[in-house]
Amino acid sequence: MVKYVYSFGAGNADGDASMKSLLGGKGANLAEMNKIGLPVPPGFTITTEVCTAFYELGRTYPAALAAQLDEAMAKIGETVGKQFGDANNPLLVSVRSGARASMPGMMDTVLNLGLNDVTVEGLAKLSGNRRFAFDSYRRFIQMYSNVVLDLGHHLFEDILESYKEVNDFKEDTELEASDWEEIVGKYKSAVEYETESPFPQNVNDQLWGAIGAVFKSWMNNRAIFYRKMHDIPESWGTAVNIQAMVFGNMGETSATGVAFTRNPSTGEKLFYGEYLINAQGEDVVAGIRTPKSITKAQHALMREDGQSLEEALPQVYAQLHDCYLKLENHYRDMQDIEFTAENGQLWMLQTRGGKRTAKAALKIAVDMVAEGMISTCEAVSRIDASALDQLLHPTIKASYARDILTKGLPASPGAAVGEVIFSSDEAEEKAAHGHSVILIREETSPEDIHGMHAAKAIVTSRGGMTSHAAVVARGMGRPCVSGAGEIKIDEVLGQFIVRGRVIKKGEIISVDGSAGEVLFGAADLEQPELSGDFGTLMAWADDVRRMKVRANAETPLDAKTARDFGAEGIGLCRTEHMFFDASRIAAVREMILSETKAGREHALEKILPMQRQDFVELFTIMAGLPVTIRLLDPPLHEFLPHSEEDVAAVAAATGLNAKKLLERAKELHEFNPMLGHRGCRLGISFPEIYDMQARAIFEAAIEVAKNLGKAPIPEIMVPLVATRKELAILKARIDEIGKTVMTKAGVNILYLVGTMIELPRAAICADEIAEVAEFFSFGTNDLTQTTLGISRDDASRFMGDYLSQGIFERDPFVTLDQKGVGELVKIAATRGRAARAGIKLGICGEHGGDPASIEFCESVGLDYVSCSPYRVPIARLAAAQAALKSSLG
Amino acid sequence: MVKYVYSFGAGNADGDASMKSLLGGKGANLAEMNKIGLPVPPGFTITTEVCTAFYELGRTYPAALAAQLDEAMAKIGETVGKQFGDANNPLLVSVRSGARASMPGMMDTVLNLGLNDVTVEGLAKLSGNRRFAFDSYRRFIQMYSNVVLDLGHHLFEDILESYKEVNDFKEDTELEASDWEEIVGKYKSAVEYETESPFPQNVNDQLWGAIGAVFKSWMNNRAIFYRKMHDIPESWGTAVNIQAMVFGNMGETSATGVAFTRNPSTGEKLFYGEYLINAQGEDVVAGIRTPKSITKAQHALMREDGQSLEEALPQVYAQLHDCYLKLENHYRDMQDIEFTAENGQLWMLQTRGGKRTAKAALKIAVDMVAEGMISTCEAVSRIDASALDQLLHPTIKASYARDILTKGLPASPGAAVGEVIFSSDEAEEKAAHGHSVILIREETSPEDIHGMHAAKAIVTSRGGMTSHAAVVARGMGRPCVSGAGEIKIDEVLGQFIVRGRVIKKGEIISVDGSAGEVLFGAADLEQPELSGDFGTLMAWADDVRRMKVRANAETPLDAKTARDFGAEGIGLCRTEHMFFDASRIAAVREMILSETKAGREHALEKILPMQRQDFVELFTIMAGLPVTIRLLDPPLHEFLPHSEEDVAAVAAATGLNAKKLLERAKELHEFNPMLGHRGCRLGISFPEIYDMQARAIFEAAIEVAKNLGKAPIPEIMVPLVATRKELAILKARIDEIGKTVMTKAGVNILYLVGTMIELPRAAICADEIAEVAEFFSFGTNDLTQTTLGISRDDASRFMGDYLSQGIFERDPFVTLDQKGVGELVKIAATRGRAARAGIKLGICGEHGGDPASIEFCESVGLDYVSCSPYRVPIARLAAAQAALKSSLG
Repeated sequence: MVKYVYSFGAGNADGDASMKSLLGGKGANLAEMNKIGLPVPPGFTITTEVCTAFYELGRTYPAALAAQLDEAMAKIGETVGKQFGDANNPLLVSVRSGARASMPGMMDTVLNLGLNDVTVEGLAKLSGNRRFAFDSYRRFIQMYSNVVLDLGHHLFEDILESYKEVNDFKEDTELEASDWEEIVGKYKSAVEYETESPFPQNVNDQLWGAIGAVFKSWMNNRAIFYRKMHDIPESWGTAVNIQAMVFGNMGETSATGVAFTRNPSTGEKLFYGEYLINAQGEDVVAGIRTPKSITKAQHALMREDGQSLEEALPQVYAQLHDCYLKLENHYRDMQDIEFTAENGQLWMLQTRGGKRTAKAALKIAVDMVAEGMISTCEAVSRIDASALDQLLHPTIKASYARDILTKGLPASPGAAVGEVIFSSDEAEEKAAHGHSVILIREETSPEDIHGMHAAKAIVTSRGGMTSHAAVVARGMGRPCVSGAGEIKIDEVLGQFIVRGRVIKKGEIISVDGSAGEVLFGAADLEQPELSGDFGTLMAWADDVRRMKVRANAETPLDAKTARDFGAEGIGLCRTEHMFFDASRIAAVREMILSETKAGREHALEKILPMQRQDFVELFTIMAGLPVTIRLLDPPLHEFLPHSEEDVAAVAAATGLNAKKLLERAKELHEFNPMLGHRGCRLGISFPEIYDMQARAIFEAAIEVAKNLGKAPIPEIMVPLVATRKELAILKARIDEIGKTVMTKAGVNILYLVGTMIELPRAAICADEIAEVAEFFSFGTNDLTQTTLGISRDDASRFMGDYLSQGIFERDPFVTLDQKGVGELVKIAATRGRAARAGIKLGICGEHGGDPASIEFCESVGLDYVSCSPYRVPIARLAAAQAALKSSLG
Repeated sequence: MVKYVYSFGAGNADGDASMKSLLGGKGANLAEMNKIGLPVPPGFTITTEVCTAFYELGRTYPAALAAQLDEAMAKIGETVGKQFGDANNPLLVSVRSGARASMPGMMDTVLNLGLNDVTVEGLAKLSGNRRFAFDSYRRFIQMYSNVVLDLGHHLFEDILESYKEVNDFKEDTELEASDWEEIVGKYKSAVEYETESPFPQNVNDQLWGAIGAVFKSWMNNRAIFYRKMHDIPESWGTAVNIQAMVFGNMGETSATGVAFTRNPSTGEKLFYGEYLINAQGEDVVAGIRTPKSITKAQHALMREDGQSLEEALPQVYAQLHDCYLKLENHYRDMQDIEFTAENGQLWMLQTRGGKRTAKAALKIAVDMVAEGMISTCEAVSRIDASALDQLLHPTIKASYARDILTKGLPASPGAAVGEVIFSSDEAEEKAAHGHSVILIREETSPEDIHGMHAAKAIVTSRGGMTSHAAVVARGMGRPCVSGAGEIKIDEVLGQFIVRGRVIKKGEIISVDGSAGEVLFGAADLEQPELSGDFGTLMAWADDVRRMKVRANAETPLDAKTARDFGAEGIGLCRTEHMFFDASRIAAVREMILSETKAGREHALEKILPMQRQDFVELFTIMAGLPVTIRLLDPPLHEFLPHSEEDVAAVAAATGLNAKKLLERAKELHEFNPMLGHRGCRLGISFPEIYDMQARAIFEAAIEVAKNLGKAPIPEIMVPLVATRKELAILKARIDEIGKTVMTKAGVNILYLVGTMIELPRAAICADEIAEVAEFFSFGTNDLTQTTLGISRDDASRFMGDYLSQGIFERDPFVTLDQKGVGELVKIAATRGRAARAGIKLGICGEHGGDPASIEFCESVGLDYVSCSPYRVPIARLAAAQAALKSSLG
């Protein structure tokens, strides 16, 4: 029989940390913590296989589940000496989701399950704390009603607020047992009114309801959106964790908190976290009360009022300190932990690898190598390559005179400038129209994910460093200031007030997430200095990396940036960008309007010196390194104005004939320009264009070789080749021009002529093409378009449907479609090498900067990847990780 | 050492008829005729390998050629007892091209080579005919100057005309030896003036000049155009044939002619040909003098003046009769022969398989089986499947009252209606703009090929049944009337006059190529009855055919036509054609404008009964046969009007909101609609559309099954699938609807759900897709577009360059690109079968009607091909031929 339920408790566990696929991250680590002797409330995990079965069986359960569940519940009862549903000695449990990958805030949780009108009295007697019992019951009703019965929180909040108003209470702490009892009655009436059914009193119904809600929440919109954003396959499913309740809300020696074993923002080796006395777990994360620091040192640093946990409950702190050291030593990584203290006894509720900023990740990895905890290869493997992107976010220039509106918590580093927006929907809409927006909220919830994603930065007036806003913003790499309590938002008036200043929606502010500052106006931003840890780790990465990393760059600025980031050459210089330059477009248009070869040549002669100068600049920056130059690629109509207004403007500015311009634009119109008269087809029809470009390349290379004594290595790339003969014809011309230019200059330089593999036919006929081509560069953007038959420009109409229905697990324009496009890349690599041993192979599509795609490139044995300059560090690291992975197996 | 030169003569030959690739058709057959004892002037063939080398070596020759050439020339001299360049006994030779495939009029010929100011005197003495010698010399100068020195014929014609005018001569025959001698002097002066160099007197220079001209002519525009039109690869090259001259212009017992062993127009078993007394070979083909019939019977039938060859030179006729019978028995096929009689002695200059109309091809093949000459399989193999198309040309209805302008020769069968046009360039231009044109010329030359191709029919006022116009028109399947001598063309006035009637350019006339009639006005045309020979041959073809042949059809008329032509089902019914119907487009547009699923469903409910009725009609015609129905494929914007005028018209006509129409059209605009939101992507986004179509199909099939007691076999085809999951999602819905409809009706019918393989990814992932798909139909139109990255609608801008530069040997949208697209088809077939044994495989792109592509389909083992109804007979025959070829090896 399939084992659906894995128990743990009292130092034993059916599972362990290696079983994340089956038990989810939380479940696997609860089992592991049991095994290493940490205090964990006993419980069990229902496997992710049940989730998969649940959906396959039309939202019903495998038959064998019920018996296993009963047995596991009984086992908890035995361990804690209570019984589920017992009137006098009731067992209460928590029900939590737990997927393979951490999905904070996405899945729902129910605490205090097992309370009803009878057991609440038992709990009151047992605890000797009637107020605690009814506070727990009202929390349970609200949470259960929200998660399982789909009722809004506001229903319960309104009841509580109005009760407090009528009775003149300010704070929840002022309410006594009888107050909560009365509120529980009101809550139950409200549920019955809304659902036309009383609040469930049968504890087994409660249990099954909560389990079902967890599984159903796997397919709610927030979860789907989060998975899409984090590339988590739908097929993984979630597990359900059920544990005996421990209560942080049992009085002044009870508490709950979350902590990181090192600082998740900076990586510093300091125990770091927050807690609340007399509270339940969700209170900290939800950001409803602002928590205090755990350590005395941190408490002092943050200038908080009240006491740190270290001071308030020193015994609990001692247990916690012991646990965190054990955890870090055991897991050999920074941990993110949740705990609860019940009457002075510490209980560990969760541990997991802590999310961290890229900067922290680097520091922690480098520190742990220094501490002898991990090897340099492990350090390299540990960094999420994509997350390095965060390090490249701008910061505010030191010279900028800051007009500080307010300060909050430095919840996520980086700086941004944008318009003030108060709603996530509006943020998304504005961003879609090209606006930079800053999202300002009292607090955020999973419903705000899309708005946070759309925003350049997030500011909240409530919540701490581990609030929803802070955690999610760090994950997204968005600057965030949380808990900026001076900000008073008035959504109705569309403004916020801070220290008496009124800031209207749409006004420009700046956010410094590293300093926790919100500034008035548009700050001057600059790129960050990369830390020493960055350099250390990149050096380790470069040591193990096999593939070279180049950049896609055409301007001197891009090329310079790329080289600074460690690019080992240019993998794609798109020459058409040079043609669009304002100083040249007139000559380009003159060429396009020419009806004769002679006319075109005349116009091209004007472009030649400018094009040569472009290459001189690039080659100077890249002296001694390979520079792949793609000859003109886009269809000619892209260089012409199209609307009558644009045509008139161009005609007036250039003296070209407006009618002729318009006619020519119409004449060149294409139904499917992506599949039209472009790439090497232009070279075949108008050989004089490529002739000019080849001449400019050779002349520039020779000039740089003479000036610097160090020649660049031009790799002349012919785009959109489908047949051997296209390349043969064009290569013959290029070689001829090279010979002429070099003979005239009396200088010989090394160069290669090759092609992009960006059409399925080119991949399939790579053997023939490799007879002529000296290198291949996989143009996976176009190869994806043609292989899948999807126009990237038009895909948005259905890509959402395709991702949500799981037709594509990931957007194939972001991560290479390995089964389809990847297979063609493999075929081309194999056939190309068979025809020309050691042919140089690279990739220059946007996939060249995507870690998953880079891993694929390593597996195919490409020689290099090329990506945008800012992704070069990511590619260097991802290539190193891919090499390590491939060496392992 | 490579053998570049193959000699023949006096009953011996180095080569034979099997060596056409190396020796060209003419050379191989000259060798073969020698071997079977026919009288052939001795000579030799320079191989096609020399032509290839000539271009590879930058228009120079392999070093070893010269010595082999000298030796072969000496050998001719020995055989005929003359010497090349000898003053007293000069050997004269002809130099002719001869490619592997016959290319009439494409390549150039030089006769009488070896004449100069010295040898002409020797020839005069030797022949005792000074007039003949100088007539031959002036012919040589003109021909050589035209072909080798690139001077126009008019230069020489003007000199001759003005000489005749000054001396008051009417006919060439009136000129005497001294006249020709004087003209030779004028010709030489003219050459020297034009080329700034005297006419070459060195006979070896002459020889190398002529050989070079033949090789160069392989790459002239006419040859390139002809190859393109006839799918002849450039790589084949041409051979050069050099033979001792024999003279048909040596007097009244000399003659020259061409003949067919059977009638090339009807196929009747009658010796058939034309000759001219005292003329050289090119005179007949060029159509300058109108020749007479060879046989007495034919002469009488044609009511010619003068005498037939049978009467005029009975001894020559007897030799010829003997030769033609030997040739037909030897080659077992109808032959096209050229001969010359010199002083009563017959010499065979050429034999080759005779070009024939499709009708003649059928009759000859069927007759030869009856004569016991060939087997039925040979008969099937012999017919050019593409040429069957000719049989499907319209004829003029018997009931039509003909207003006959004039009669000429019935040079190529079929009938056509069009505007009178006098120039080939104008014909091409008008045709490109959709006009039907009839090309009227005095005579045609290879320069007119593009105009003839563009025209619906050709009429010439001069020339016979074997004139250029006649031969080419038959090859192209264009109706042609030749030698319509009553027509007087006045190009300047843009008109022709016939029997006093003036017909202006642009007026409509009709041509009956079978009757040789030119009619005023637009005749009523009808499809021809297919002859009994057609049925006989198709039955033989069907006996050996393995693949089924289906038709692409969506209207009842098309389906009926297809079934009449022998289609065994429908391979592609495009349902969008039904949506465009005027009576439905309003509901379709209403659906597209709906913003909700409910709104779309409401509109679809209106379409359902109409769509169902479409299928009822198709299924009734195809009862018992498979019908593949493709669900909606094009992007929705194709159904909307786009310009503001169209939108206004549609809005007025339908009551739909104009502004909304325009907005929706703009909203749906795509950059690359070919790669956009179409095919199954519509089915994923708007499942209700495919639901309606599936319902219509099932309901219609059940209705027909009930009505006829014979159910159709619907094969429901999901287009543009790239992934297994797309098909899985849609198939589940279709199956569900099928189940519902069948349960309700209480009837079960067989059906299949499958997909088009039209994207490279689908081909590559065919194994996964075949887990779901019950059949594959290769949509090679779109597969070609995506694999090659070429938009068919935009390809015309560069396809010409690509064909002329040999990048594509054939247009890949006409004949399947086997190396690229074909490889994907193979991969898909192999992987598809591996995943689902016996999965049904077919092709429904336009390649399904192209014989070369059908041969490929046989080699991959497809189950059927599907093509347009009128190409079904072609596909049946081509499939049979492919099966025969594949059974041979």
